[in-house]
Amino acid sequence: MTDTKELLKQVAEGAVSVEDALLTLKREPYVDMGYANLDLHRRLRKGSSEVIYGAGKNAEQIAGILTMLMQKGQDNILVTRLDQDKYDAVKAMLGTAFPETYYKNARIMITGENRKPDGVGTVAVVTAGTSDIPVAEEAAVTLEYLGNEVDRIYDVGVAGLHRLLNRTDRLMKARVLVVIAGMEGALASVVGGLVNAPVIAVPTSVGYGASFNGLSALLSMLNSCASGVSVVNIDNGFGAAYQASLINHM
Amino acid sequence: MTDTKELLKQVAEGAVSVEDALLTLKREPYVDMGYANLDLHRRLRKGSSEVIYGAGKNAEQIAGILTMLMQKGQDNILVTRLDQDKYDAVKAMLGTAFPETYYKNARIMITGENRKPDGVGTVAVVTAGTSDIPVAEEAAVTLEYLGNEVDRIYDVGVAGLHRLLNRTDRLMKARVLVVIAGMEGALASVVGGLVNAPVIAVPTSVGYGASFNGLSALLSMLNSCASGVSVVNIDNGFGAAYQASLINHM
Amino acid sequence: MTDTKELLKQVAEGAVSVEDALLTLKREPYVDMGYANLDLHRRLRKGSSEVIYGAGKNAEQIAGILTMLMQKGQDNILVTRLDQDKYDAVKAMLGTAFPETYYKNARIMITGENRKPDGVGTVAVVTAGTSDIPVAEEAAVTLEYLGNEVDRIYDVGVAGLHRLLNRTDRLMKARVLVVIAGMEGALASVVGGLVNAPVIAVPTSVGYGASFNGLSALLSMLNSCASGVSVVNIDNGFGAAYQASLINHM
Amino acid sequence: MTDTKELLKQVAEGAVSVEDALLTLKREPYVDMGYANLDLHRRLRKGSSEVIYGAGKNAEQIAGILTMLMQKGQDNILVTRLDQDKYDAVKAMLGTAFPETYYKNARIMITGENRKPDGVGTVAVVTAGTSDIPVAEEAAVTLEYLGNEVDRIYDVGVAGLHRLLNRTDRLMKARVLVVIAGMEGALASVVGGLVNAPVIAVPTSVGYGASFNGLSALLSMLNSCASGVSVVNIDNGFGAAYQASLINHM
Amino acid sequence: MTDTKELLKQVAEGAVSVEDALLTLKREPYVDMGYANLDLHRRLRKGSSEVIYGAGKNAEQIAGILTMLMQKGQDNILVTRLDQDKYDAVKAMLGTAFPETYYKNARIMITGENRKPDGVGTVAVVTAGTSDIPVAEEAAVTLEYLGNEVDRIYDVGVAGLHRLLNRTDRLMKARVLVVIAGMEGALASVVGGLVNAPVIAVPTSVGYGASFNGLSALLSMLNSCASGVSVVNIDNGFGAAYQASLINHM
Amino acid sequence: MTDTKELLKQVAEGAVSVEDALLTLKREPYVDMGYANLDLHRRLRKGSSEVIYGAGKNAEQIAGILTMLMQKGQDNILVTRLDQDKYDAVKAMLGTAFPETYYKNARIMITGENRKPDGVGTVAVVTAGTSDIPVAEEAAVTLEYLGNEVDRIYDVGVAGLHRLLNRTDRLMKARVLVVIAGMEGALASVVGGLVNAPVIAVPTSVGYGASFNGLSALLSMLNSCASGVSVVNIDNGFGAAYQASLINHM
Amino acid sequence: MTDTKELLKQVAEGAVSVEDALLTLKREPYVDMGYANLDLHRRLRKGSSEVIYGAGKNAEQIAGILTMLMQKGQDNILVTRLDQDKYDAVKAMLGTAFPETYYKNARIMITGENRKPDGVGTVAVVTAGTSDIPVAEEAAVTLEYLGNEVDRIYDVGVAGLHRLLNRTDRLMKARVLVVIAGMEGALASVVGGLVNAPVIAVPTSVGYGASFNGLSALLSMLNSCASGVSVVNIDNGFGAAYQASLINHM
Amino acid sequence: MTDTKELLKQVAEGAVSVEDALLTLKREPYVDMGYANLDLHRRLRKGSSEVIYGAGKNAEQIAGILTMLMQKGQDNILVTRLDQDKYDAVKAMLGTAFPETYYKNARIMITGENRKPDGVGTVAVVTAGTSDIPVAEEAAVTLEYLGNEVDRIYDVGVAGLHRLLNRTDRLMKARVLVVIAGMEGALASVVGGLVNAPVIAVPTSVGYGASFNGLSALLSMLNSCASGVSVVNIDNGFGAAYQASLINHM
Repeated sequence: MTDTKELLKQVAEGAVSVEDALLTLKREPYVDMGYANLDLHRRLRKGSSEVIYGAGKNAEQIAGILTMLMQKGQDNILVTRLDQDKYDAVKAMLGTAFPETYYKNARIMITGENRKPDGVGTVAVVTAGTSDIPVAEEAAVTLEYLGNEVDRIYDVGVAGLHRLLNRTDRLMKARVLVVIAGMEGALASVVGGLVNAPVIAVPTSVGYGASFNGLSALLSMLNSCASGVSVVNIDNGFGAAYQASLINHM
Repeated sequence: MTDTKELLKQVAEGAVSVEDALLTLKREPYVDMGYANLDLHRRLRKGSSEVIYGAGKNAEQIAGILTMLMQKGQDNILVTRLDQDKYDAVKAMLGTAFPETYYKNARIMITGENRKPDGVGTVAVVTAGTSDIPVAEEAAVTLEYLGNEVDRIYDVGVAGLHRLLNRTDRLMKARVLVVIAGMEGALASVVGGLVNAPVIAVPTSVGYGASFNGLSALLSMLNSCASGVSVVNIDNGFGAAYQASLINHM
Repeated sequence: MTDTKELLKQVAEGAVSVEDALLTLKREPYVDMGYANLDLHRRLRKGSSEVIYGAGKNAEQIAGILTMLMQKGQDNILVTRLDQDKYDAVKAMLGTAFPETYYKNARIMITGENRKPDGVGTVAVVTAGTSDIPVAEEAAVTLEYLGNEVDRIYDVGVAGLHRLLNRTDRLMKARVLVVIAGMEGALASVVGGLVNAPVIAVPTSVGYGASFNGLSALLSMLNSCASGVSVVNIDNGFGAAYQASLINHM
Repeated sequence: MTDTKELLKQVAEGAVSVEDALLTLKREPYVDMGYANLDLHRRLRKGSSEVIYGAGKNAEQIAGILTMLMQKGQDNILVTRLDQDKYDAVKAMLGTAFPETYYKNARIMITGENRKPDGVGTVAVVTAGTSDIPVAEEAAVTLEYLGNEVDRIYDVGVAGLHRLLNRTDRLMKARVLVVIAGMEGALASVVGGLVNAPVIAVPTSVGYGASFNGLSALLSMLNSCASGVSVVNIDNGFGAAYQASLINHM
Repeated sequence: MTDTKELLKQVAEGAVSVEDALLTLKREPYVDMGYANLDLHRRLRKGSSEVIYGAGKNAEQIAGILTMLMQKGQDNILVTRLDQDKYDAVKAMLGTAFPETYYKNARIMITGENRKPDGVGTVAVVTAGTSDIPVAEEAAVTLEYLGNEVDRIYDVGVAGLHRLLNRTDRLMKARVLVVIAGMEGALASVVGGLVNAPVIAVPTSVGYGASFNGLSALLSMLNSCASGVSVVNIDNGFGAAYQASLINHM
Repeated sequence: MTDTKELLKQVAEGAVSVEDALLTLKREPYVDMGYANLDLHRRLRKGSSEVIYGAGKNAEQIAGILTMLMQKGQDNILVTRLDQDKYDAVKAMLGTAFPETYYKNARIMITGENRKPDGVGTVAVVTAGTSDIPVAEEAAVTLEYLGNEVDRIYDVGVAGLHRLLNRTDRLMKARVLVVIAGMEGALASVVGGLVNAPVIAVPTSVGYGASFNGLSALLSMLNSCASGVSVVNIDNGFGAAYQASLINHM
Repeated sequence: MTDTKELLKQVAEGAVSVEDALLTLKREPYVDMGYANLDLHRRLRKGSSEVIYGAGKNAEQIAGILTMLMQKGQDNILVTRLDQDKYDAVKAMLGTAFPETYYKNARIMITGENRKPDGVGTVAVVTAGTSDIPVAEEAAVTLEYLGNEVDRIYDVGVAGLHRLLNRTDRLMKARVLVVIAGMEGALASVVGGLVNAPVIAVPTSVGYGASFNGLSALLSMLNSCASGVSVVNIDNGFGAAYQASLINHM
Repeated sequence: MTDTKELLKQVAEGAVSVEDALLTLKREPYVDMGYANLDLHRRLRKGSSEVIYGAGKNAEQIAGILTMLMQKGQDNILVTRLDQDKYDAVKAMLGTAFPETYYKNARIMITGENRKPDGVGTVAVVTAGTSDIPVAEEAAVTLEYLGNEVDRIYDVGVAGLHRLLNRTDRLMKARVLVVIAGMEGALASVVGGLVNAPVIAVPTSVGYGASFNGLSALLSMLNSCASGVSVVNIDNGFGAAYQASLINHM
């Protein structure tokens, strides 16, 4: 967007023809693979390379996208929602020349090296129960990928309030908090009341019956009586981590 | 039910004819007013007189039922969900010979004298916010009517946890707790985790947007991660009080 | 919580230093295993050892938690929602030195000896149909684990009212009733109208189509026209049993 | 439909021209008033005159339709969902030459004389509570309009089972039963289990909170564990009566 | 119920003692198998033997119930929702001495001989599409089991209205109609407008996306603008057949 | 969008400076009134002037927007969802110099002259009932405003199929059809099966109970078994008309 | 329908007897296979042969229908929702004499030759993401089958607006647009605001958590603030294509 | 919380007695008014004084709370959801000695002086339409109260993308963005894709029909395909502002 003025200037100066200018606007910065349009300028615009949402793509598509991105010089790519089987298939296609780490719990694959922490403070990732950990790991691994120091505080749900209160110091030290809970999702409100930092709440599909696959926790968090709480989609550890990282890098 | 054997005995002894026995079974213990069947034995069976749910009846019907019950010697009747206007209309019909108390906040009318407390312990009525008080008063007044000592602990929602923790003693002293909250309803889980007594949770319709008129609090409470919590209908202060009183009189 | 005063006293008397007091408050009574915080004082606070919700944990986690709890001297632990396969895996990890009983129908494992009944009366566990029995067994086995005498009354749904009425005596003798039904869940209201004891209703996911996995029974029970009925989550036999046991031990 | 053959015969015999036949097919048996198409043959096809659903029409439209129908010789018309205000407005337009009866409770107006009962047996209209009576009266008045003997059995909800069991004889005598209940709607299942006749269940919007304006009773009735129960829309007393009358006239 | 008077008479005459009378009332007519209470008088009360809902029972339970019922002389039993695998398991347990027919499409097993048609007229079973046929066969086989002549009219959905109109004669000849449709369920309204007989509508879970597993068809049928239509649960071919048979035997 | 190339050309030719080009891009073609951004080029881009959705704006805002648009030379403006009271208020503010027509039934105000029909064919606006007419009029008046010939076919719901079939010619003659129905919304499928032209279905909130304010009709139409049917929002007569007009002007 | 007049004429002329005329009306143009009624005149009425919805039919039924249709001279048949396994089974039954193409991505089988493009313009099929492509291919293959030129524009979701804006020319050139998106479905509104042609929006079930299997995208598209957008069922690529083709052939 | 150590130290030093320490913990920092517990330390803990949610409190309660807070020296209090009537009543009770400003559009009252902007950057408040402005003003006034510079960008919904793109500079300059939209809520995704700052999305109840009072926009925003977007409750301008201010003050 900010290049428009530059381009217009070049057009005015005759350095760039009208046709070329139009072409430039149309061709860049995407690579069109037919089934996917890859954003090569995303690191510039958004501060990190393209992120691949693995759930809706088959192994061929993921391998194809990775190959293309690496050909274009993108060497630090995050793939989310990649279960073990699909990961194995992708790996089989790409072979050993393909440097990456797979985080099974988090269902995440990252190519290249992990970024050094460069965020301002620490991001706390807090869960109500053990069952929420896969979502928490999706958040934690994403946060580390995006250059944040992470403090994992797991299984401190409100039914045993001492567990939580005993971590008050760590909660208070965090610059941003990602609070993850299923069932009744009360943890977000309680943490939101204790701290004076932004809380990003992630409802999880943990539970049964009237949890309705996370709806209960979602509504609970949206209705939080504590100020300073906002919410992302059910099980969306990545989304919470992304926003938390934005805030932690301000 | 337990009278059936007695009646059968009397039939066997010839003291009661078959026809009369059948008639008795059919006629008692209800008074059929066409639009209402009044249960005159309810005090025996259930420990309190007939309770009138005022919301779905017009003033004429309520006045008619009260008149009939009082003619039948029932002198301590609870009418719930009776707003000021309907109460005024009922009062205008029944006049001064009609001893009663009206609890505006609770929307409850009670005829006759209030019962002395005869429950084993105290029932705590706890609310998350000020807006939950009308439901709490419906519960508290009902509890007092049913012979319970009530400890009102209002506006101690989890967003300011200190407010709640500072009342830990009173919470722990209660034999049963009625916990009332709208919005995200987290209070039930937190209280349920603190005490070792039965918690009856009442979701309220307090809130807006994604509270969906109490659905959020309802689901939250049903999914409580704390043990020992059960739930009644949205805004059903009466129902929670009734069960709490049953437990407190055991 | 009640130890705070004691601790403060010891601080005042110089028996405990400020630093130690703080440390004590922070460290106890939980064991932090990273993926789980185990509550070792739960028996004191809540009257029973830690309960493990098996559904959201894998076999490794359950075996790890059991091992730790037993090392800490907790010898009577309940694991719920443990299906046969996961139970087999846990057992394979822990071996024969691991005394336990597995209740297949109830999907429950209990380590150590069962507690002798010490509740005041009997808890009736009542189901509408045969299909509700797994939930009922979760409730019944939990009740026995918590020291209650249980009266199982199964398959007495309201479509054949005689089946229910013929058990009126047993229903009336119970100190608390756990009433379990899927489909339209009408049993809770009918039983609630017959007895004068607290009824804890458990909707089940039994049914199809417009039962919406238990929603129909859940709403039905929440709207019960009978007084004295409260409700727990769909299929939550454990939760109902827990509250029933609390009441039966008062 | 059955006239098509007759018409074709007349065409074959030359008694009716092709154009006239087409015209006949197109013109009859409706009167097109622009905003309404009136069915003048409905009594033939369906056994009763046109029924006007008053809720979605204004007073002018209702008065217009009534005038047209009466001009066409239809003298026994049912208007449903007509509240007092709209009725007054209609009456003011049509004046005294307009013979009719208004049933305030049922929100029904009927022109002309009521039909003599000509159904085979009696239709029982049964309600759980007093608040269900307006819907019950819509059903009962419609049933009488359609020529049925009606037995009104009101306020016999399952929370006081004796009230219902004491009417077993009347329930059993009915040829068809219309069972009307709000809240948890359990009455339909219980009655369905007692009788051996078709039960048409009408959920009502009576209740609050998790009754969700009748959804609870609706789902409950659709999931009835009793055989022989079918369901109509929430508050649809007319629809239940219509089908009950069809059955009672077989 | 109707035997109560008789029993009372015998008590009055001394022919039956009070204790025996009570015992009789309590013991009969159910056989309590622990996991199931079998109704042996159902044929008397309801006109057909016990029906077994197979979905929520395992093969052992079904085989056990069948064995018991046959020992008690019930030789014509319907088992619904019995898929091929469970049927095979039941058959393997009961062996060749066990005369029965299995209807794979309908997922129904019937023991003994089919009843001769003794209903007054024909029951039409009408479907919108080919995919609705399993539900339709559940209805049709049940209807035949209950003694009805069935006219199967399949795949006549409203998108091709000619298919339906060409069967108008058969539709009109039916004494009762069971109309089965998924997706938008419009067939019920259209058939309801054509005929003058009771229509029992069965929504099916056929469809995808916004059919929400039959919710769309269910709501559609409940809101039918045609008079004389009532509705049963989604996919409940049995329930519709049961009520249709009741009506057809009046 | 298409002007970008033109502008770039002028920049290249030096006819327009870079700064001016940027300014132009930023300033046009909107007028920013603070509370509203008015699109002055909409007639060019979309074929009609700005349309004002009246429901969410107060009279002052509507009057302000109209005044501004007319100052900018826009003389043929459509305001939708404008009830009588708000219209009166707007009119009072703008006075007599303000040429407009108000369509009460359609809740639409149009300034200036109506456009002459210039669409290719006729658009049929079809309703199931009388109560659907306000939505139909919103569609019809919008269609006429957009230059279409409209054929109104009202009250031809599927419960009386003859009413519909008798209009088959008119239905078949239409180039596009807007089909409007509440309750079960079956009309869309039936019309969709009869014609070979695009059908745009409009569910209405007409109905009660399980119509859930139009949800039933909406789902029904989305699940239409007829090909060639698409759907707009509940009661969105304007939206259907807009798309129909686009199609009719191709 | 249009043949009725012709037939009547022949009856009038004596060329056809009344009985034969009736028979003709009843027998044609369907072939009744018991489980399916095949429409042989569909090409005449609707412009394309019968389309088979494969999801609710088993392989035997599909093979049977294909055989029958081909016997009746229908040589260009579309089968939708046919997954690989079912396709293989159908092919195994019908053998090599059976000329067809299978589109795996689109889950579509087409017999005979593809039709040459005869639509007026191009139909753009636009998706938000890679995961939406199967639905898009169902639309695209259907469109080609129906004689349309298709422009596939995939993976241009609004999170990277440049990708979309760079295709503005192609979007603007399309005569009709099928816009396909899951998750929040915003693409439909953005495209609807850019173009001046009809947009048919297809929500997909792509997403997780609060996408509720496509509900989010569905509601989003129904509430589109852009004019000219209508919506079909979730994942209904076929339906959108069908209507788009109708419009493109006008 | 952080004072606990201090207090313990004083206890250890004998400066504070155990009883006094306990008392202190219990009494502070709340004022218990019976119907409300006022938090006097909130400014310390949370950075702003107590905020009063006006919707669930009557005028007496609000006036009482304000009086108490001002007595306690709190002179800059925000009251939200205070409609004109309730504001007038509060003002009448408190009189002229009560310095405050009322923001009618925002339904907010603020006592005392507004805080000077002390946030790091600007917070953009962006709306899709004119109807979203009341929610936007609730956000904007709250932001100003909390010390933020606000840039209001109203009525830039995605249906007219130019309006939005022309404000790209202002969007990009904001440190945090509050994006407010009803209907399909697409604006959040589009803005989220354009900027590299945290976006807090507020769904509004603006819309009708299938917007289901904001549900559509809520789901849309939760499913946003753009990274960096989190969501608050429907119409919760205050909540979004609160979190945005937290972030802007980091």
